[in-house]
Amino acid sequence: MLRGAPSRPPSVAAPHPGTANCSVDWHTQPLDHFSFTETRTFEQRVFSYGGYWRRPNAGSAAGPILFYCGNEASVELYVNATGWMWEHAEELGALLVFAEHRYYGETQPLGGSSATNASTLRWLTLEQALADYATLIHRLKLSLGAPDAKVVAIGGSYGGMLAAWLRMHYPSAVDAALAASAPVLAFDGLRRGGRGKASPLFDGNAFWRVVTRDASPAAGAHADCIPAVRATWEAIDSATGSAAGRAELSSVFRLCEPLREGASPSDAEGGAGARLKALLLNVFDTLAMGNFPYASNYLVFQQTRDPTVLLPAWPMRAACAHFAGAVTSDAPSLLRRMAAAAGVLYNASGKARCYALPRSALDGGDGIWDWQYCTQRLPQETYFNLTGGRDMFWRFNKSAATIATHCTRRFPGVVQRPGWIAATSAFSSAGSASHIIFSNGEYDPWRSGGVLRNLSSTLVAIEVPQGAHHLDLMFSNADDPEPVRAARRAELALVREWVAQPLPRVAHTSD
Amino acid sequence: MLRGAPSRPPSVAAPHPGTANCSVDWHTQPLDHFSFTETRTFEQRVFSYGGYWRRPNAGSAAGPILFYCGNEASVELYVNATGWMWEHAEELGALLVFAEHRYYGETQPLGGSSATNASTLRWLTLEQALADYATLIHRLKLSLGAPDAKVVAIGGSYGGMLAAWLRMHYPSAVDAALAASAPVLAFDGLRRGGRGKASPLFDGNAFWRVVTRDASPAAGAHADCIPAVRATWEAIDSATGSAAGRAELSSVFRLCEPLREGASPSDAEGGAGARLKALLLNVFDTLAMGNFPYASNYLVFQQTRDPTVLLPAWPMRAACAHFAGAVTSDAPSLLRRMAAAAGVLYNASGKARCYALPRSALDGGDGIWDWQYCTQRLPQETYFNLTGGRDMFWRFNKSAATIATHCTRRFPGVVQRPGWIAATSAFSSAGSASHIIFSNGEYDPWRSGGVLRNLSSTLVAIEVPQGAHHLDLMFSNADDPEPVRAARRAELALVREWVAQPLPRVAHTSD
Repeated sequence: MLRGAPSRPPSVAAPHPGTANCSVDWHTQPLDHFSFTETRTFEQRVFSYGGYWRRPNAGSAAGPILFYCGNEASVELYVNATGWMWEHAEELGALLVFAEHRYYGETQPLGGSSATNASTLRWLTLEQALADYATLIHRLKLSLGAPDAKVVAIGGSYGGMLAAWLRMHYPSAVDAALAASAPVLAFDGLRRGGRGKASPLFDGNAFWRVVTRDASPAAGAHADCIPAVRATWEAIDSATGSAAGRAELSSVFRLCEPLREGASPSDAEGGAGARLKALLLNVFDTLAMGNFPYASNYLVFQQTRDPTVLLPAWPMRAACAHFAGAVTSDAPSLLRRMAAAAGVLYNASGKARCYALPRSALDGGDGIWDWQYCTQRLPQETYFNLTGGRDMFWRFNKSAATIATHCTRRFPGVVQRPGWIAATSAFSSAGSASHIIFSNGEYDPWRSGGVLRNLSSTLVAIEVPQGAHHLDLMFSNADDPEPVRAARRAELALVREWVAQPLPRVAHTSD
Repeated sequence: MLRGAPSRPPSVAAPHPGTANCSVDWHTQPLDHFSFTETRTFEQRVFSYGGYWRRPNAGSAAGPILFYCGNEASVELYVNATGWMWEHAEELGALLVFAEHRYYGETQPLGGSSATNASTLRWLTLEQALADYATLIHRLKLSLGAPDAKVVAIGGSYGGMLAAWLRMHYPSAVDAALAASAPVLAFDGLRRGGRGKASPLFDGNAFWRVVTRDASPAAGAHADCIPAVRATWEAIDSATGSAAGRAELSSVFRLCEPLREGASPSDAEGGAGARLKALLLNVFDTLAMGNFPYASNYLVFQQTRDPTVLLPAWPMRAACAHFAGAVTSDAPSLLRRMAAAAGVLYNASGKARCYALPRSALDGGDGIWDWQYCTQRLPQETYFNLTGGRDMFWRFNKSAATIATHCTRRFPGVVQRPGWIAATSAFSSAGSASHIIFSNGEYDPWRSGGVLRNLSSTLVAIEVPQGAHHLDLMFSNADDPEPVRAARRAELALVREWVAQPLPRVAHTSD
């Protein structure tokens, strides 16, 4: 770290600094931090930029380390998107470090076979990832000659959960955390904002209620959107009942393979209609998370791998605009409008030839994340109930038993621990941690599992009005609403205060 | 818990309440909390007493749970010795829970073969033990209908380390901790009382310097003790060089097997003289830890299994008394005096026929603890250097390489992680945890690795003047020095304050 090839200073010519400015290092990690009989290791990829770092010397303490906790994608995505770190590094005199999460990107513990099955995925747990980060931080500080450097863990979404939990579980390794859009309370048995009975238990349907609100005039969307979307599901259900209807749906929704007769549309694991509706549910889900005020590739890059493919500004409004003037009794029109709305996401490139159905209406189809859901219940919104009443979707009750059956089928013989997070990692009270910022965007459906109220003077909830999924971590943009800028300033002020607190330096007296 | 056989109220007829008053329950635990492919479970033994507990009801919050973190012996030892919990339960309205540590006592994950070798010991780690405790606490609170009950983790020695680490790593499961005589800083790379350069790195020899001080007039021992003890080692070295000398040593020290010619006396792993000296080193070690003001079975019960066998009051003074008037040039007299001093420990019963040499001069011979040392470096004083200068022993440098070689030989193929605790579990600064009491006795050699100075207003160091190894946790005794009573009162005041703090009960507002 910082001793390999010199990293380039951020170029003013490029739109934003990112991976091109960084050094890349590979750090050896144990495959299993919690076993002493497993001797295998792997290499973890770490990006860093030290051009702004205030190195330690006799006269002054080292600047802080801003440590991005990589989440469920190539860490390059986060290096290139986390403007908060790049834009505040100089003022803080900070070293920037971005660590890749095991099993994602190029950090594959067992190489190309890492994701084969349970026997290869078994070291993919949040505890292993946290231990990777804690030990990496320790070694970095020693190798940099800065054992006393303050460390701020930073992350968005699952990365924000990791940042918060890194501070919770390894408070000696990390001094503070900025956890953006981190649904740390999105677990059965957890209560929002305290463990008293006054707080309700987590309810996954709240996620879909935020999505629904994003499609309402309160979030700038057309007033016809919600009624029309709600009416569409019955039109789909009706059409799936006949061969002609299925052919029509296959055509209107540009499906790569025609819909086939299958289980009933409400069948949890499949059924032609259920999977089509899951495909469409994902549109509103993604556009809600990505409901940014400017065109952005952030939520489509993992699929397109083309940085020039963008979602439009306020994409939920763009999708909803297709329902303007819709008549809820006109089924053919509803289907065409819905297909157009789906195109906002699936045809963002303008070049999509067809859309592929997910394999299941439950798991969301995003690969190894289902392992993280089925084992530890890390939040996956496709498992959250739909009511059709309080949200704009259809009634789809996903019981614990249904989910357990799905997970058993997907990963036979694997232990499921739905209660693990509630038992071990609950942000339940003032004493459950300190020095963490939880930021949540008004439009972000993951706020449903976020810490929305201060738990103490150093467990601070910051609201990001008009923000979607961790917009506050992204590079500043001319179209950012002023409340988003204000939230970023509030975050910076807290981080600046927390890293400036003096370390206790106790004079030694003899034994 | 509390639903099985009713537990008996503590009897005023018995000298102290203990296991006879408790309910015993067995809780199913995963063999491996950090794996989802390991499906085996085991039963963990838990003692509890609920006669003083303030049960939750509409009008008042539940009383706290005082949770003893079992350490490296049968938990019955701690149930019967931890008077602090029994004596303060009524005032606190507390439920008493004593959990047995996996692999100790009757909590054997693999039954009788649990301790066979590395392949059976592999789930013996402090992380697994902490996860046992965190999940047990969660389930207890739910099953008792007291999800908001405050929990105070309590323990002495390794149990104190577990209590402190349980609060550090699982702050949502445990609200506070009383860590008595817990050498949480007794790890390479850790600094006492802060991570600034002003604090020295941990030095294991400090342990032996406290032992030496306990043999000095400053701790009430005879002034002839230290010079005579120091002179004895050369007498032993000299005698081991000849067959006649070895026969003499074997006789004087009542060895079960005669000393044989072997490696040089300074050989780390053995050698007749080295093992004899290790046998004697253990005398001063044990009498220092057990240097209580009254006769006690606490430190000999694990060996004798007879509660009537006691060490005398102030046993270090008793051992040192055998050196009163010693002439340091009179080798035969020194050997006889040393043998008499050894008898204070090894012949506490008055019925010992012979004394058995340890297998090695390094590992201390206490069974599976060596696994916990060799893997994670949980403190084992036999691995701490002797200088012969600043302590009263002989020069015995135990390098990291020597230790690694020993551990490789003992547990072939097993990973050693000497830096794990420093990276993950350092009480290094004010921010590294909160609401923990670290108490340390003046006479306890483990104070060398203890937190002796406040790290913050809620990371509080309490000194126990004239106390040895966690005397403060034991039942009150008429012979307790007043400063020991004062320390207990200070601990109670902090615990009372911390468990009384109101929980945040945030009113719910809709999404």
